[in-house]
Amino acid sequence: MNYRIDNLQYCNWSREIFEINREAGLNAVHVTVVYHEDYDEFLARVSEWNELFKKNSDLIFLGKDYKDIEKAKSENKTAIFFGFQNCSPIEDDINLVEKVHELGCRFMQLTYNNQSLLATGCYENVDSGVTNFGKEVIKEMNRIGIVIDMSHSAEKSTLDAIELSEKPIAITHANPFFWHSAKRNKSDTLLKNLSDSGGMLGLSLYAHHLKDSSNCKLENFCGMVAKTADLMGVKNIGIGSDLCLNQPDSVVEWMRNGTWTTAINYGEGSKDKSGFPKQPDWFVDARGFDSLEKGLKNIGFSIDEVNDILGNNWFNFYKGIN
Amino acid sequence: MNYRIDNLQYCNWSREIFEINREAGLNAVHVTVVYHEDYDEFLARVSEWNELFKKNSDLIFLGKDYKDIEKAKSENKTAIFFGFQNCSPIEDDINLVEKVHELGCRFMQLTYNNQSLLATGCYENVDSGVTNFGKEVIKEMNRIGIVIDMSHSAEKSTLDAIELSEKPIAITHANPFFWHSAKRNKSDTLLKNLSDSGGMLGLSLYAHHLKDSSNCKLENFCGMVAKTADLMGVKNIGIGSDLCLNQPDSVVEWMRNGTWTTAINYGEGSKDKSGFPKQPDWFVDARGFDSLEKGLKNIGFSIDEVNDILGNNWFNFYKGIN
Repeated sequence: MNYRIDNLQYCNWSREIFEINREAGLNAVHVTVVYHEDYDEFLARVSEWNELFKKNSDLIFLGKDYKDIEKAKSENKTAIFFGFQNCSPIEDDINLVEKVHELGCRFMQLTYNNQSLLATGCYENVDSGVTNFGKEVIKEMNRIGIVIDMSHSAEKSTLDAIELSEKPIAITHANPFFWHSAKRNKSDTLLKNLSDSGGMLGLSLYAHHLKDSSNCKLENFCGMVAKTADLMGVKNIGIGSDLCLNQPDSVVEWMRNGTWTTAINYGEGSKDKSGFPKQPDWFVDARGFDSLEKGLKNIGFSIDEVNDILGNNWFNFYKGIN
Repeated sequence: MNYRIDNLQYCNWSREIFEINREAGLNAVHVTVVYHEDYDEFLARVSEWNELFKKNSDLIFLGKDYKDIEKAKSENKTAIFFGFQNCSPIEDDINLVEKVHELGCRFMQLTYNNQSLLATGCYENVDSGVTNFGKEVIKEMNRIGIVIDMSHSAEKSTLDAIELSEKPIAITHANPFFWHSAKRNKSDTLLKNLSDSGGMLGLSLYAHHLKDSSNCKLENFCGMVAKTADLMGVKNIGIGSDLCLNQPDSVVEWMRNGTWTTAINYGEGSKDKSGFPKQPDWFVDARGFDSLEKGLKNIGFSIDEVNDILGNNWFNFYKGIN
């Protein structure tokens, strides 16, 4: 059985997008429900999702574990797995790890771009690694079954997390630094450590993470996938598209600035290019999985390998979460 | 005019303690209102203080600036200045700096013992210094008039804060490391940087910060004050007793553990000595200021210098807050 999984989307959710994801054949999507929200605000996001589940029950349902991906496949639906791009919903309280898990959270980044109470984000000048509280939270996430996601974290913090976590961790959405030297992309050392420990890299289709940005060519992307497979092994890579469909630019401003600065921070963008970047024309939405399938075959991957990269690897990773 | 100021107390507040502080001749006390509380919990602490102000209006009132210390002196009362031992009440929101100031906050530690969103605490293994958010908050605290307090912070973070802050900062309660090598005590380099920048050190009477702990002798303490004055200048030192009168041991457990760990952290204590330590017999409460006055005179300080150390230096520092 083959599964298609996009392990990171943060869209302005609507029936239209759920339909597109079905057209793309996605059996599971890990969705970002929280960037900077605290616990109470997370509860509000859960209520909003409950409405979406009710209104679109023919297309989606809340996924709890890998069996829900099998169920989604058999019912022609998409299982939605909740994740956080920051640890803000657990505030300073280790007891909230269990609470957010009960409400569906299965992935949590230890940091967004800045320092968190748990670890250091990739936009800080100095990376102190996983903190005292971070060490406790990693143990608790391992115990409860929430995946440690280090997509936006700095290098030492990520290496610490790999070492401290008893379970494999994930970088749900990023690309290798060797291909495109963005702050958010990851070094060879880090990717090697990640795969050696059984962790997963979700390759990103977000223009700021791509060589030549929105003009990135499919062949070039697939060439990068091949080199990454050489480095990490083909079983440790998947897709985490980072699709932000239909989001207004005010959302990317909020993602970058939250409430931590009175100045304007452009993050991966710049003053001239402050909004969401354009998607490459071969991946404007999740239906781009079909382009990827062709591109990966063309670059020389076997059909099994293509299926692994487009979902089976993530499916196997989900099996180990609990 | 001479003022007596204790620039850190965290007592289990009662009329009895306010009376003791009056007997001790204290014109101002900087009180800890928050350890780990978030903004809403801080509001609850403010309500509790408002009750205390109402019931003890003959003894205390909320201090807003140095003029309230003059007023307290003339009315034989003690002005109470609010402070935080952690930045938790501003959560991740720079706009809350102004809000907590409106409610009386005049001192805020950028960290307690662990990493915060702003800087690194002295109990972390690695000190990354002031964070991106921390830099923004320091600017805002300078603008609004809240003193940056680095009593529990790690060395690099403190040196960063001294450099980044346009106004002098404070270490409201700690002693020099040369005298007693506790994690919470401060290096010569740090103290020299602090005084060179116009900052203040509040010397602590908390047993864990004292040579020989509860058995510390007054003469020995005053000898340390003399050496510290040689290092920093006599104008940059005051008292921040760290008195925790009548607090049950459950409070020190909460101070150390908050909600960040499921294990037990003993902080400055140990498994055998987990509770609040006994005060030295010459400083069981604020009336110990009289012992200090004698001890400092005996060690050779002039009367003016003694008055500076016991309150005038803090009074002058308060003049520069706004």
